Amino acid sequence: MSALVIDRIGSLVTNDPDVGEGPLGLIADASVVIEDGVVVAVGRAGAIADERIDADGGCVLPGFVDSHTHLVFAGDRAAEFSARMAGVPYDGGGIVVTTEATRAATTDTLDRLTLQRVIEARRHGTTTLEIKSGYGLDVANEVRALDVAGRHTTETTFLGAHLVPGEYTGRADDYIDLVCGEMLAATAGRARWIDAFCETGAFDADQCRAVLDAGRAAGLGLRLHGNQLGHGPGVQLAVECGCASVDHCTYLSDADISALAASDTVATFLPAADFSTRQPYPDARRAIDAGVAVAIASNCNPGSSYTTSIPFCIALAVRDMKMTIDEAVQAATLGGARALRRTDVGHLSPGSAGHAIVLDAPSHHHLAYRPGVQLVRHVVA
Amino acid sequence: MSALVIDRIGSLVTNDPDVGEGPLGLIADASVVIEDGVVVAVGRAGAIADERIDADGGCVLPGFVDSHTHLVFAGDRAAEFSARMAGVPYDGGGIVVTTEATRAATTDTLDRLTLQRVIEARRHGTTTLEIKSGYGLDVANEVRALDVAGRHTTETTFLGAHLVPGEYTGRADDYIDLVCGEMLAATAGRARWIDAFCETGAFDADQCRAVLDAGRAAGLGLRLHGNQLGHGPGVQLAVECGCASVDHCTYLSDADISALAASDTVATFLPAADFSTRQPYPDARRAIDAGVAVAIASNCNPGSSYTTSIPFCIALAVRDMKMTIDEAVQAATLGGARALRRTDVGHLSPGSAGHAIVLDAPSHHHLAYRPGVQLVRHVVA
Repeated sequence: MSALVIDRIGSLVTNDPDVGEGPLGLIADASVVIEDGVVVAVGRAGAIADERIDADGGCVLPGFVDSHTHLVFAGDRAAEFSARMAGVPYDGGGIVVTTEATRAATTDTLDRLTLQRVIEARRHGTTTLEIKSGYGLDVANEVRALDVAGRHTTETTFLGAHLVPGEYTGRADDYIDLVCGEMLAATAGRARWIDAFCETGAFDADQCRAVLDAGRAAGLGLRLHGNQLGHGPGVQLAVECGCASVDHCTYLSDADISALAASDTVATFLPAADFSTRQPYPDARRAIDAGVAVAIASNCNPGSSYTTSIPFCIALAVRDMKMTIDEAVQAATLGGARALRRTDVGHLSPGSAGHAIVLDAPSHHHLAYRPGVQLVRHVVA
Repeated sequence: MSALVIDRIGSLVTNDPDVGEGPLGLIADASVVIEDGVVVAVGRAGAIADERIDADGGCVLPGFVDSHTHLVFAGDRAAEFSARMAGVPYDGGGIVVTTEATRAATTDTLDRLTLQRVIEARRHGTTTLEIKSGYGLDVANEVRALDVAGRHTTETTFLGAHLVPGEYTGRADDYIDLVCGEMLAATAGRARWIDAFCETGAFDADQCRAVLDAGRAAGLGLRLHGNQLGHGPGVQLAVECGCASVDHCTYLSDADISALAASDTVATFLPAADFSTRQPYPDARRAIDAGVAVAIASNCNPGSSYTTSIPFCIALAVRDMKMTIDEAVQAATLGGARALRRTDVGHLSPGSAGHAIVLDAPSHHHLAYRPGVQLVRHVVA
């Protein structure tokens, strides 16, 4: 047994209203005791420990739970980004460029690149992250991507239905048959989740429903990309199928919001994608006020959102999505955990995972108040 | 004599079109040799050096020149920021809160806080920064602020005319007399620049002109805050007075742009302030296309822009001010140098200061393409 105490915490975000104040469960002048990776005590008590982190009056909060990333890829698309910023619109089509680079990369290269990104995310405070496949788009390369992802997280997602690969151009239904049949079978045991990109230019509602149905039959949890580039059927489909999360939600109709509010499906916003594609931002205020459970994630990928920084996403959510700072911080911790149907992470309470961030700042407000500044001093995971 | 070589540079931004390609003077597969803090060679040659930094294929660029900061202050205004994000508009009035906290702080505290911020800025790539007074607002405290600032930079700016302090409420002209008389005299030898806040709620054009005239007579260089919260006389006044820079420029009329384009006054944009006050962003595209010389700076201060991150400002300038990445990077290096009338920084050419940043990225494009990510690996200054 090894024990770690984080003490002299100026402000502790527990996300547990039973142990602290308000929805964030805030405790001032706190300490946290972690034994063998599990929180055993939260509060004001001192403790004897093998290791000690002095928070020096800083804020401590649960590690960020980034429930939406595409970290397994090779190459980058800086030129496409530059062109877009100069006025070329984003249609998602650049995924094929990354697919070519990813297929061409050795497994060692993919492992190294993915590890670099996981480390970078960790430096910015992310302690739990989901990783999708989706740049392989053939059986062998989707299997390989999930193997790479599985070396870094248990939250692996099979996203064969990311885009129709070049060799299936004009034959999207045939590709969906492959995804639901041979490809899904080949990935058995490698993914916890299945996902699909429900968008004009990617897959329609029937195609996505087929993918989700096949995934459910294979024992996978369900997630969906939807309503990124326009009003579409994604949100309704996700609710109908009982997805844990529907991601993007940049465009939400009143009916979408009502459906989400009455469901167990989390609306996961990806504001860094809206930033990097110069899309409008989702109206999170409206969704939250209607009772929708929300999360914030990075969507880290080389095309539409090449950031691993959840603090950056929090700052955007506050500035441009009209979330309060408390809501944004909770959406990036407890919200992400809900989107992954995890109860062990996203909060700091006795029994929870000992995943904590120590900030160079007195309060979680500084995550939005000090945009772009690397405030994460220590990460415990 | 000590020599440092930075080699294995994948992409070198020199900002010198004579030595490399395009306006950024880009050189691929480059090295830089710095002797006693001065660049002595730029290009592909190898060199014998006492110290070596291996850029490992990363991008190297001139250190950022942040020409507008208010780093000398105590306290923070996180609560005001939170309220603003919840809908309370920004009017600049919170400066008095910081003035009270700054006056109450010991000099040791102000020194320590300022040093922490300078170090933080350095970690994000800033190697030259301007620091203003302006939270003292009485003779002794303005002198003290400039003394603190002068321990960290040669680019010190006397901003007694930041806001009318409480003890002069309703007597702005009397306060301007103090600024131009006793206060300016007391700060002699402590500031390189004089500045004023030309804005409704702060000082009008006549008051600011008096400050600039007095500063010029005292041998100071001139700068001005203008056109932040609305169309105002600031830009025209700055051009008329020959200011090195007019800062904010969020609102620019056609006449303002014409005046700037025909002048030696740099338009310094502060996009992080527009971000953190939820203001509209300036139309930099229009200004640049008209031939205006532009800079980007952080405006780091506890009220309207509490960031030290120039990469964050670059990302905003590209996304929200429609600058190209090249323009934004140049505005944060060479542009900042021009705004401070410095020729030794902001570029990497034989004879320039040896201030360089090594990125964990292959190109300067990643500063905008990877928003919120701490890409600065080494800073040489």
